[in-house]
Amino acid sequence: MDWSLSIDKAIPRPLRVIFRGVGQVFFCCNAVTGLIFLIALYVGGITAGLAATVGVVSSTIAAYVLGFSEDDIDAGLYGFNGTLVGPCLFLFLEHTPQLWLYVVLASVLSTVVLAALMRILQPYNIPASTSPFVLTCWMFMVAVYSFDGFSRGPVLPAPAIPADIAAASVVTTEFATLSKDAIEAWYTAITKGIGEVMFADSVIVGILFLTGIAITSMRGAVMALLGAIVGVAVPVLLGADKTLITMGLYAFNPVLTMMAVGWVFLKPTAGSALLALLAGILTIICQAGLANFLAPIGLPTLTFPFVLVMWMFLFAAGKSKYWGNAS
Amino acid sequence: MDWSLSIDKAIPRPLRVIFRGVGQVFFCCNAVTGLIFLIALYVGGITAGLAATVGVVSSTIAAYVLGFSEDDIDAGLYGFNGTLVGPCLFLFLEHTPQLWLYVVLASVLSTVVLAALMRILQPYNIPASTSPFVLTCWMFMVAVYSFDGFSRGPVLPAPAIPADIAAASVVTTEFATLSKDAIEAWYTAITKGIGEVMFADSVIVGILFLTGIAITSMRGAVMALLGAIVGVAVPVLLGADKTLITMGLYAFNPVLTMMAVGWVFLKPTAGSALLALLAGILTIICQAGLANFLAPIGLPTLTFPFVLVMWMFLFAAGKSKYWGNAS
Amino acid sequence: MDWSLSIDKAIPRPLRVIFRGVGQVFFCCNAVTGLIFLIALYVGGITAGLAATVGVVSSTIAAYVLGFSEDDIDAGLYGFNGTLVGPCLFLFLEHTPQLWLYVVLASVLSTVVLAALMRILQPYNIPASTSPFVLTCWMFMVAVYSFDGFSRGPVLPAPAIPADIAAASVVTTEFATLSKDAIEAWYTAITKGIGEVMFADSVIVGILFLTGIAITSMRGAVMALLGAIVGVAVPVLLGADKTLITMGLYAFNPVLTMMAVGWVFLKPTAGSALLALLAGILTIICQAGLANFLAPIGLPTLTFPFVLVMWMFLFAAGKSKYWGNAS
Repeated sequence: MDWSLSIDKAIPRPLRVIFRGVGQVFFCCNAVTGLIFLIALYVGGITAGLAATVGVVSSTIAAYVLGFSEDDIDAGLYGFNGTLVGPCLFLFLEHTPQLWLYVVLASVLSTVVLAALMRILQPYNIPASTSPFVLTCWMFMVAVYSFDGFSRGPVLPAPAIPADIAAASVVTTEFATLSKDAIEAWYTAITKGIGEVMFADSVIVGILFLTGIAITSMRGAVMALLGAIVGVAVPVLLGADKTLITMGLYAFNPVLTMMAVGWVFLKPTAGSALLALLAGILTIICQAGLANFLAPIGLPTLTFPFVLVMWMFLFAAGKSKYWGNAS
Repeated sequence: MDWSLSIDKAIPRPLRVIFRGVGQVFFCCNAVTGLIFLIALYVGGITAGLAATVGVVSSTIAAYVLGFSEDDIDAGLYGFNGTLVGPCLFLFLEHTPQLWLYVVLASVLSTVVLAALMRILQPYNIPASTSPFVLTCWMFMVAVYSFDGFSRGPVLPAPAIPADIAAASVVTTEFATLSKDAIEAWYTAITKGIGEVMFADSVIVGILFLTGIAITSMRGAVMALLGAIVGVAVPVLLGADKTLITMGLYAFNPVLTMMAVGWVFLKPTAGSALLALLAGILTIICQAGLANFLAPIGLPTLTFPFVLVMWMFLFAAGKSKYWGNAS
Repeated sequence: MDWSLSIDKAIPRPLRVIFRGVGQVFFCCNAVTGLIFLIALYVGGITAGLAATVGVVSSTIAAYVLGFSEDDIDAGLYGFNGTLVGPCLFLFLEHTPQLWLYVVLASVLSTVVLAALMRILQPYNIPASTSPFVLTCWMFMVAVYSFDGFSRGPVLPAPAIPADIAAASVVTTEFATLSKDAIEAWYTAITKGIGEVMFADSVIVGILFLTGIAITSMRGAVMALLGAIVGVAVPVLLGADKTLITMGLYAFNPVLTMMAVGWVFLKPTAGSALLALLAGILTIICQAGLANFLAPIGLPTLTFPFVLVMWMFLFAAGKSKYWGNAS
C-alpha cells in the first residue's frame, strides 16, 4: 500500500535494505512488511529472531564487499537467503557457540551462490529465489556428520531408507468432519503453514506474516492464504502424515509457489490464478517425492519443492502465448 | 515411406496429432506409425493401452490449453511423454481408481516440464526428448511412500542400499552357446527390448514397434535393431543379471540412443552410425550406474540413461568439425 | 618460467600434447611440468603411471578422431581428464585384465563429456575443469555392482547410510601441539594433500607435483601450498576424521580450488587471493557434505567439491564489479 511505501522510503538506507531483505522472503520489497516479519520472528523465538538477523546482515554485507549490483542489494535481494539460513541451521543443528560462526559462513556462501545462479539464469530471465538458501543449508547440514564440532539437532530426521507411511499416522477424522474441532485443526494448520516458511511453528507468527504481505499486496496475501489451504486440503485427500499436515509442513511450499506464480512473476490475471492453483497442487506431490528422495541422507526438503515447481512453470511460461512475465 | 505420409495427411487433425504423439516415442512424426504403436500397446494389454491413450490425450490437450506452439503440438511433440507416463504409472503403482487421476495430473505436468526444458535447451538446439516423462514419473512414483491413497506395485523395486550382483543370477550358457536355445534367447531378448521402450514385456509388441518404425524409416529400424542387439550382447559380455537381459531391460535404452544418434539428430553417415554404436555401448554402463545410484530410493532408471548419453553426444556434436545436426 | 616454455616448444608435437595434458591436471599448459608430473606418477607406482598414460593417450586420441578443436587439444585440454580417469579406476576397482579396456572406454567418454560441458558452459565462459573425469568415473564405478566382470577394490567405501563421526577417530593431539611429531604430521598431510590430486598417497610425489607447478608459476605453487595448509588446518579445527586428514584427503580439493580462484581464472590480485582463501575453506565443508550425500551409493567425492565451489565463485565473479576473468 502507498502509505507503507512512503514509510519504506523514509527509513535510513542501511536499515531499509535489511528490512527489505527480510520482506523478500515473501517477495515483498517493502521495509515495513520486512519489519513486521522480523518482529514476528522474534515473537516466535528470540534465538530464531537473532539467527535471522545475523543471517540477513551477513549475506547483505557480503554482497557489498564482493561488489554485487547495488540495485539488487537495495531491493533486499541479497538479504532473504541469509534470513532463512540463520533460523534453518539453528532449528536443525545442535546449539553451540560455534554455530553462530557457521551461520555467518553459510550466509556469506548463500550470497555467492545467489550471484552465481543469477548469472546462470540471466539469459532466461528466471529468478534464483530461495534456491541458494536451500543448496547452502543442505550442504552445511549434511556436512556435520563428518565433523566432531557440530551435531544434528533432534528435529533433523535420521538418515534412513524411505518406507511406506504407516496407516496409524494418516489423517482420519480431524480434518474431514464439519465440527468445531475440524475448524480449529484447519485454522491451526493453515496459519502455521504460513509461519513455517520461516520455520515458525506458531499460529500468531503466521497471522503476522500474512498481515505483512497484505500491507504490500492484497493479491499476494490471497495467494498465500490459498496456498496454505491447498497445502492442507490436498495432503488430507492424498492421505498424508497427520503430524506434518497439522504443523503446516505441507503448506509452506504451496504458499510460496502460489504467490510466485499467481502474483509476482506472471501477469496477475484469472488465468495465472488458475495456473497457480495447479502449481500449488503439484508442489504437494513434488514435496512428498523430494522428501523420500532425500530420506537416505536425512535432509529436509526445505523450500526446494517450491523452487522446482516455480522454475518449471516460469520456464514453461516462456513458451506460452498466453502467459507473460509480470515485470 | 511416401504412402504412409499420404495417409498421415488424410487422417483428421485431432486423431493425427494423437497418433503422431504416440509415434514420437520412437522419433516418428507419422500417424500411421503411431497408430501401429497404439494397436501394439493394446495387444500388449488393455490397461497399458488405455493408460497410454489417457496420457497422450491429457498431455496434448494440456499443451493446447496452456498455449504452447501449435507447430510442436501438430508434430506430436507434446504427446509422447504423456504416452509413456500412463503405462509407466500403471506398471509400477498399485491399480486403484484414483490412479487414473494421478496419470492425468502427471501427464499435464509432463507437458509443463517439456515446455520448460525446451526453453532451457533452446539456445543449444538440443531436444528434451523423454526427460519430462522420466522426471515427472520419478517424482510421482517416489511420492507414493508418503501417501496412504497410493502404493507401489509389486514390480517397483523396494528401496535398498546397492549390493554386488549375485554370481547365481549372471548369464552363463543361454546366450553364449551356438544352440537352438541360444538363438531363441537372443530373439526373445532383442524383440522384447524394443517392446520395453513402452513397458511391453512381449515379443509380438516389439515386432510391431519395429514394423512401425520401418514404415517411417529403414535406417531408423536398423538402428533400433542394432541398439537391441547391443543391449543384449554388451551386458552378456559384462556379466549382468540374466533376468534383466532376457526381459530386454538392458536393451530399450540403447535402442533409443542408437536411433537418436545414428538416425534422428546427426547427419546419417557411416561416421554417425559408428558414433551411435559407441553411444549404445556406453548407455549400458550408464544404465547400470544409474540403477545403483537410484537403488536407495527404489526408482527404476526408465529411459534416463538414453537421455543422458544422447545429451552428451549431441552437446559434444556442437564442438566437432565432423558431426552435424540433421535438421 | 621462460626456459621451461622454450623446452615445451622444442618437444615433438605428439609428446608435447600428451605432457601438456598431464600438466593441465594442475592447470599447467607446460610440457616440462607435465613430464615432471608423469615421472612423479611412476615414482608413486608403476600401475598408476601406466593407467595415467593410457588415460591421457586415449582421451587425446579420441578428441582428434571426434574432430574437436585442435587448439584445445594442443593445449592439453583433452588430456587431463583421461590422466585422472586411469589411476582413479585402478585405485577403486579390482585389478583385472579387462580393467584396461574399461579405462580406455571411460577416457574416451570423458572426452565426449568434456566437449559437451564446454558447449553448455560456452555462453558463460566458465571451464568444465575436472567435472568430466568425476562424472565419468562415478558412473563407471557405481556400475560395477551390476556386472560380474568387474568388482570394487578394497579402497572404495561400501555403500552405507551416513552416520555421525566416532569421537575416537577425531584428531586430538597430533596436529594441535607444538612438538616435533606435530610438525611431521603437518608436513606429511600437506605434501600428501598435493599428491592426492592424482591419487598418490606419497610425500615425495606431492613435492614433485609442487616443483612442477612452481616451474610454470610461483603464484600457482603458493596457492597450491596454501590450499593444502587450509585442507589440514580447517578439518582439524572442525574435528574431522584423523586418517583422512593425515592422508591429505581433505587437502587435494582446496589445493585445486585455491589455484583456480587465486591464480588461473581471476585477476591475480590480493583480493582474489583472499577470495581463494574463502573458497578453500568452503571447499572443506562442501567435501564433507558431498561425502555424506554419496555415502548411500558408496562413491568417493573425487574432485567434485573443488568443481562445485570453483563454479560458484566463477559464475558469481560475472556479477561482481571487482572480480574479473584472468583471460
